[in-house]
Amino acid sequence: MREIAVFSGSAHPELAAEMCAHLGVPLSPVKVDRFANDCLEVQLQANCRERDVFLVQPLVAPVQENLVELLLMCDAARGASASRITVVMPHYAYARSDKKDAPRISIGGRLVADLLVTSGASRVLALTLHSPQVHGFFSVPVDHLHALQELAQYFRRYDLSNTTVVSPDLGNAKEAAAFARLLGTKVAAGAKQRFADDRVSISSVIGDIADRDVIVLDDEIAKGSTVLELLERLRELGPRSIRVACTHGLFSAGALGRLSDQPDVLEIVCTNTVPIPIEHRTDKLRVLSIAPALAEAVRRIHNGESVSALFDAH
Amino acid sequence: MREIAVFSGSAHPELAAEMCAHLGVPLSPVKVDRFANDCLEVQLQANCRERDVFLVQPLVAPVQENLVELLLMCDAARGASASRITVVMPHYAYARSDKKDAPRISIGGRLVADLLVTSGASRVLALTLHSPQVHGFFSVPVDHLHALQELAQYFRRYDLSNTTVVSPDLGNAKEAAAFARLLGTKVAAGAKQRFADDRVSISSVIGDIADRDVIVLDDEIAKGSTVLELLERLRELGPRSIRVACTHGLFSAGALGRLSDQPDVLEIVCTNTVPIPIEHRTDKLRVLSIAPALAEAVRRIHNGESVSALFDAH
Amino acid sequence: MREIAVFSGSAHPELAAEMCAHLGVPLSPVKVDRFANDCLEVQLQANCRERDVFLVQPLVAPVQENLVELLLMCDAARGASASRITVVMPHYAYARSDKKDAPRISIGGRLVADLLVTSGASRVLALTLHSPQVHGFFSVPVDHLHALQELAQYFRRYDLSNTTVVSPDLGNAKEAAAFARLLGTKVAAGAKQRFADDRVSISSVIGDIADRDVIVLDDEIAKGSTVLELLERLRELGPRSIRVACTHGLFSAGALGRLSDQPDVLEIVCTNTVPIPIEHRTDKLRVLSIAPALAEAVRRIHNGESVSALFDAH
Amino acid sequence: MREIAVFSGSAHPELAAEMCAHLGVPLSPVKVDRFANDCLEVQLQANCRERDVFLVQPLVAPVQENLVELLLMCDAARGASASRITVVMPHYAYARSDKKDAPRISIGGRLVADLLVTSGASRVLALTLHSPQVHGFFSVPVDHLHALQELAQYFRRYDLSNTTVVSPDLGNAKEAAAFARLLGTKVAAGAKQRFADDRVSISSVIGDIADRDVIVLDDEIAKGSTVLELLERLRELGPRSIRVACTHGLFSAGALGRLSDQPDVLEIVCTNTVPIPIEHRTDKLRVLSIAPALAEAVRRIHNGESVSALFDAH
Amino acid sequence: MREIAVFSGSAHPELAAEMCAHLGVPLSPVKVDRFANDCLEVQLQANCRERDVFLVQPLVAPVQENLVELLLMCDAARGASASRITVVMPHYAYARSDKKDAPRISIGGRLVADLLVTSGASRVLALTLHSPQVHGFFSVPVDHLHALQELAQYFRRYDLSNTTVVSPDLGNAKEAAAFARLLGTKVAAGAKQRFADDRVSISSVIGDIADRDVIVLDDEIAKGSTVLELLERLRELGPRSIRVACTHGLFSAGALGRLSDQPDVLEIVCTNTVPIPIEHRTDKLRVLSIAPALAEAVRRIHNGESVSALFDAH
Amino acid sequence: MREIAVFSGSAHPELAAEMCAHLGVPLSPVKVDRFANDCLEVQLQANCRERDVFLVQPLVAPVQENLVELLLMCDAARGASASRITVVMPHYAYARSDKKDAPRISIGGRLVADLLVTSGASRVLALTLHSPQVHGFFSVPVDHLHALQELAQYFRRYDLSNTTVVSPDLGNAKEAAAFARLLGTKVAAGAKQRFADDRVSISSVIGDIADRDVIVLDDEIAKGSTVLELLERLRELGPRSIRVACTHGLFSAGALGRLSDQPDVLEIVCTNTVPIPIEHRTDKLRVLSIAPALAEAVRRIHNGESVSALFDAH
Repeated sequence: MREIAVFSGSAHPELAAEMCAHLGVPLSPVKVDRFANDCLEVQLQANCRERDVFLVQPLVAPVQENLVELLLMCDAARGASASRITVVMPHYAYARSDKKDAPRISIGGRLVADLLVTSGASRVLALTLHSPQVHGFFSVPVDHLHALQELAQYFRRYDLSNTTVVSPDLGNAKEAAAFARLLGTKVAAGAKQRFADDRVSISSVIGDIADRDVIVLDDEIAKGSTVLELLERLRELGPRSIRVACTHGLFSAGALGRLSDQPDVLEIVCTNTVPIPIEHRTDKLRVLSIAPALAEAVRRIHNGESVSALFDAH
Repeated sequence: MREIAVFSGSAHPELAAEMCAHLGVPLSPVKVDRFANDCLEVQLQANCRERDVFLVQPLVAPVQENLVELLLMCDAARGASASRITVVMPHYAYARSDKKDAPRISIGGRLVADLLVTSGASRVLALTLHSPQVHGFFSVPVDHLHALQELAQYFRRYDLSNTTVVSPDLGNAKEAAAFARLLGTKVAAGAKQRFADDRVSISSVIGDIADRDVIVLDDEIAKGSTVLELLERLRELGPRSIRVACTHGLFSAGALGRLSDQPDVLEIVCTNTVPIPIEHRTDKLRVLSIAPALAEAVRRIHNGESVSALFDAH
Repeated sequence: MREIAVFSGSAHPELAAEMCAHLGVPLSPVKVDRFANDCLEVQLQANCRERDVFLVQPLVAPVQENLVELLLMCDAARGASASRITVVMPHYAYARSDKKDAPRISIGGRLVADLLVTSGASRVLALTLHSPQVHGFFSVPVDHLHALQELAQYFRRYDLSNTTVVSPDLGNAKEAAAFARLLGTKVAAGAKQRFADDRVSISSVIGDIADRDVIVLDDEIAKGSTVLELLERLRELGPRSIRVACTHGLFSAGALGRLSDQPDVLEIVCTNTVPIPIEHRTDKLRVLSIAPALAEAVRRIHNGESVSALFDAH
Repeated sequence: MREIAVFSGSAHPELAAEMCAHLGVPLSPVKVDRFANDCLEVQLQANCRERDVFLVQPLVAPVQENLVELLLMCDAARGASASRITVVMPHYAYARSDKKDAPRISIGGRLVADLLVTSGASRVLALTLHSPQVHGFFSVPVDHLHALQELAQYFRRYDLSNTTVVSPDLGNAKEAAAFARLLGTKVAAGAKQRFADDRVSISSVIGDIADRDVIVLDDEIAKGSTVLELLERLRELGPRSIRVACTHGLFSAGALGRLSDQPDVLEIVCTNTVPIPIEHRTDKLRVLSIAPALAEAVRRIHNGESVSALFDAH
Repeated sequence: MREIAVFSGSAHPELAAEMCAHLGVPLSPVKVDRFANDCLEVQLQANCRERDVFLVQPLVAPVQENLVELLLMCDAARGASASRITVVMPHYAYARSDKKDAPRISIGGRLVADLLVTSGASRVLALTLHSPQVHGFFSVPVDHLHALQELAQYFRRYDLSNTTVVSPDLGNAKEAAAFARLLGTKVAAGAKQRFADDRVSISSVIGDIADRDVIVLDDEIAKGSTVLELLERLRELGPRSIRVACTHGLFSAGALGRLSDQPDVLEIVCTNTVPIPIEHRTDKLRVLSIAPALAEAVRRIHNGESVSALFDAH
Repeated sequence: MREIAVFSGSAHPELAAEMCAHLGVPLSPVKVDRFANDCLEVQLQANCRERDVFLVQPLVAPVQENLVELLLMCDAARGASASRITVVMPHYAYARSDKKDAPRISIGGRLVADLLVTSGASRVLALTLHSPQVHGFFSVPVDHLHALQELAQYFRRYDLSNTTVVSPDLGNAKEAAAFARLLGTKVAAGAKQRFADDRVSISSVIGDIADRDVIVLDDEIAKGSTVLELLERLRELGPRSIRVACTHGLFSAGALGRLSDQPDVLEIVCTNTVPIPIEHRTDKLRVLSIAPALAEAVRRIHNGESVSALFDAH
């Protein structure tokens, strides 16, 4: 059968390398040149002909550079006669641009989906998209994974008999509820009201918090203001301990530092969908690898086995 | 300039007629035949050539019949050389199929959007889509209106000084907050947890309810179980009066009767995006017309005036 | 090699089951839900990933329901990463909408072909389309079968030495001539003039009828008026016996009863491309199964063997 | 409003010039170069920018040269920013390739329709397509005219009180019946059975022929064998006089000579959809111009007036 | 008629403003936001509905940022119901990626052309593309201007009776020859052999150089190594004076300084297709504005007048 | 695995047959009919279902006939369920139409590329396209071969120690330089200035010519005027011997005779990408076969092996 060929863009080569180690296939080299006029040229340096090509590139900062690089990789693979091109996009930043909440803006999440298809993507492997509707922005098949199993596996090292999982947002409470089911704990949620892009207010928290071990769970943490706001509300309710967990640890603008500086936050747990520079890391940070899960999904996609069967935590 | 031609499918001709009255243009006739083999044939019975064609058809029950009829109308208008084809779809039932929450299902909201474009639709005029992301399912321009102005206009007949607008769902609280701003009232929200398609539980209500005049606001009411559940929670908090309002009054399966039977519900207010048979109506029902708003939007679309300017209530 | 997965829509599950029995593969289950707002959700309940998927759905009444269901199935299979999606459509009702014989109508046969492709169909397996040009409406490969072998096989039980095959319509006489060649009989044809949708007049019959065993052959019988008219003409010519045969037995509006009530009609023979409810069946009806032929075509499509070789009766 | 620009390919410049005279617009010049390597280059030598461009080119022999020239013209007009490109194709030779009557052939009528759209055609103006289904091969709007009015106008010079219009083929009898209605005459038809591409046999003629003035009407005459065969059948029935009429006078392979040599054929009447070289013409030939009708259709297309209203003879 | 609306991306707002001044229309404001996750959101802050929208954005460094911004602007304009979207791209950096000179790379010039069309671009206004074939990469109409008139106008201030225009490259000599014709001067060319991306060798110069006033003309100057190499060859031939001119003054990596440091180079003349920061400018630099030419082209595109008529210098 | 099926159009069946001999597969028969109305019908006379189909057709005179035939073959193969359709086009005449050097012409090289894709081509195997940018005109993968190895292999029979390869055109000098590297010889180039389609002037030749064995190398020779002009320049420089070589020997308008009549031209060497009629051949002509190279490329394409690896002469 046609073989796998895995390539990595510049965004997160460590993740791709780790995936390949789990798959037992080499990570094929990519040469990226930047010309005098600032244009990129990407060369896939292994035969793609009739191969089952996987291009690993989370859309993280610098987003525009990484996006255009990914589009060039897709087109190069198509022109090189790849049999199938799967974009492995563990983080899709433009998924947040999912609605037209102001006149005369683009719904970026839909536009970028179309750009990927125009460039040759045959399918997408994504992880915890900002909203489930973003799946519908793609005209090619999407395998939409989540990282709840990995997060749950980590927290099982603790005594969870007195634990409550807290969602900062009732809209996101489904995730937290699924996570709580996995851990066998209670669930609670902040009743978040988002008034503007950077001002968030949490009016109350619904559920048992007092004297409990709290795990705050969010899908992504960028500037961290939502979580910080939630922490203030939680403290009013007297929790016994606080841990913070998320799938996508973007931690922009010193967010990791600010969160780590909260004395009552014992741990900040995230996955490696987004690369976190060593120099930004703190003692409280725990980064779990989703590479084994992605590798298993790639293996199943390649072999035509059910992917939904694997990730059916919900 | 090219003229307007408005046609109505079988779903809601009264609404189309009312729109045309406001626009001051005739409603052009449509002939629908059903052949012996159950196939439909739709004839647009007025010249479409170089016209700015508007096809009015909310996707309501019987949804499949109305959808195929609409697709045939689009194709007929295209084949008849319409200059532009705007689908006026005051209710888009398939918008609820907006995510892939089970393996191997279609995201119907995206599929039907694509079918409309394949059939010739140049643009869509929609009203209060189930989720704002559905806008991004369309590859053609969408004007996405809401009916808050119409609902607000109605409630201004009452003394609102002691009123609280209640959203059954925190996820939908944005609408309720905007509505409360329009009315100058307080806002509250139920913290809804939906566990299955037909079992809903509301754990609590956040906001001032006791001794207040409550207006429950939802985007659509189908079977009404969410509202009924909310009413139980509200009663525990001792409101002074209760009214129920929504944009899309689907009222399936006897919902209107069940709601009207609640003695403490004074009124049920909805708009006419969905036709409500006379025989289902009750004394407590008030149906507001969105025909003037739709007509004004059509006028602006035709004249190239800003539509966002008109509906900027949020 | 990739495996076959066969699913059936609601239109004719018996036919799909029979095909699967001949193929020796299971009929994979499908779950169809109808929501409170009348929208359909179709779940294909077996892994489609990299499978060679066949969706069996004749477009019969209720045509619009069955069509939308089929479109949802196509899209679901595509989203579930099917390797190839073949729509098995033993009867294609919209094929009759094959020309624009009035201004501002859709050519439904072309539109529905485009809708199927938009929804993900990779190819179509059809049987005796209303006109051969309808093949050209599809932008994907079509295997266009006929049922003459099955009908011939049935009639070979009789002494055919004195038989004449009669086409009600000279336009359709090619089919009848091919059928006569298969049976080694004479052929005749009514010179039909169709003046309006439901008034048909047959001016004469060309060929030997007197004192012969007549088999009237049509591609489909819906209301049956054409055949009834032909019978009147035939009787004037003194046939020895009359049998009626067709591929698609739609038998709408009591047609089967009316035909069976003709005392000189000995038998009415059709195939099971269209489901015929038990309660409509009469003693004179013989329903032949095309399931073996469809199964053999599916087998050949799957294995890449010539399909034209199989059905080369013409 | 945007202006008309009319260009003619090499196939039939006289027809285009005559259309332009009727329209009162100049025929814009076209420069066709053939390079040393046999490639064509077509330059439209008038501004096309935002113009309503009409490209006149019947697909007649040399068909491949004329087709590629037409495709180059479409693409040139699109690249030159034409607002709309209407292909005026009074004869569409590939319309005869409308079904797949042998395995592994192209349905040329559909393919060429797609090629025209790929090259930039926005719409098509056609005249008497070989079968009405060919209309459905186009994904752009088609105005499908006929020439019955022009033919009728010509024959009204004769006393028609004893006339029968005869269709060589019952399948084509609709045209003949419409023509007979226009002239107020009787109609008859040959019961044609076509057995192979160049062997045709007509078994009988249905209708009154004896002692009547016969007008044989066909849509096109190429080699003329069908008409010659019909003439033999007619003579057996003793007509008083015979005239032959058709829309498309292809007259290949000496057909015009053979027909003119029939002593009892008084006249052969056709239109100028296809150019007929002076040296092939005979004394019995009458060529009617469809230029006024095409010009009127172009005028209406340009002005957005109903075209169906004009040609509603059927 | 529909009005013009001009928007500028971040790449070169000064050029857009100058164009608008010449056109006598306001430059409509654009709001560009960068979210915490590095995604861009672009809002067009003026009504686009049925407008003739022009988006001004040369693809210059930072190319990827400017490209994605431009794609978002196109999509926003389309979603805002622009009647037509013209991308005004005075410099198209990716045009240099016009061939596949290594295996498994993208032809970026074609890919980016496709991305623009996917995002909604209806047409492109470009200026001196790297090779004329790049025009063919676009599936939408392109107006391809040049700046030779502007450059010629500048040099006419000098006595040109003893002048030779020199192309660094025989492949580019067509431009230089056209320029020489405009100025009424002689023409010469370097016989350049490019061996690698950054090593260039010029073996000889063909034409009269000795004792003449030389104007070196290139389409773009990035690192300037080609021109510097040519200068060495020229000096061996004893020119009287040297001036350097180009259309696109990219001047990357200190090129402007290096060129200005050549004592015998009297002047470096370019246009403002690319923004040149004040701090990089030298005394020898003359920047000519192509804003009037672009404005005139926009005016003609808007009014449907011939653009080729204007720029017919070749 | 899916099998190879090779078909040849009418343009060059000898080449296809030779390729098949090298591949060890039969050349599948094709039946081409021309109807009375000059339309073509092409039947592929071997099963294509799930086959890896290769269609061999250089676009040579009669170009339009051969092009339409090829488009019909593509469409027939697609309709016959070919798994993949590779157009093997050893000469692509329309590649010379690669820019818009006059207003309102088509860029034929792009248009024909789009027509091939519309007709069903999945990929293209081309050889020495007129300019490398033409590769970017195709939206499907292209394998772009050259014939330098074949030409080099031939010339190695001579003592090459005193040889100079001469390109008529500096723009084409890359090819000549690569060829010289293969042969280990010097390289020179004419500084060609093309002023009009059929008038060419060469001002000088750069490189060592005097007393050397010259091999003139061009990509194609049509009318031969460029080479004849170059020969005049070369003679002025006193070469020891002259041979002429090219890839595409079009030799139109008696070019082969004119070249052969040059007494100092010892040999004219080309490949068989273009058929050369026996009656045009001269004693000085040597035709090398590229069939082995094309066969090897087809083999690698079929097996998914790297094609670039094979032809990496540059």
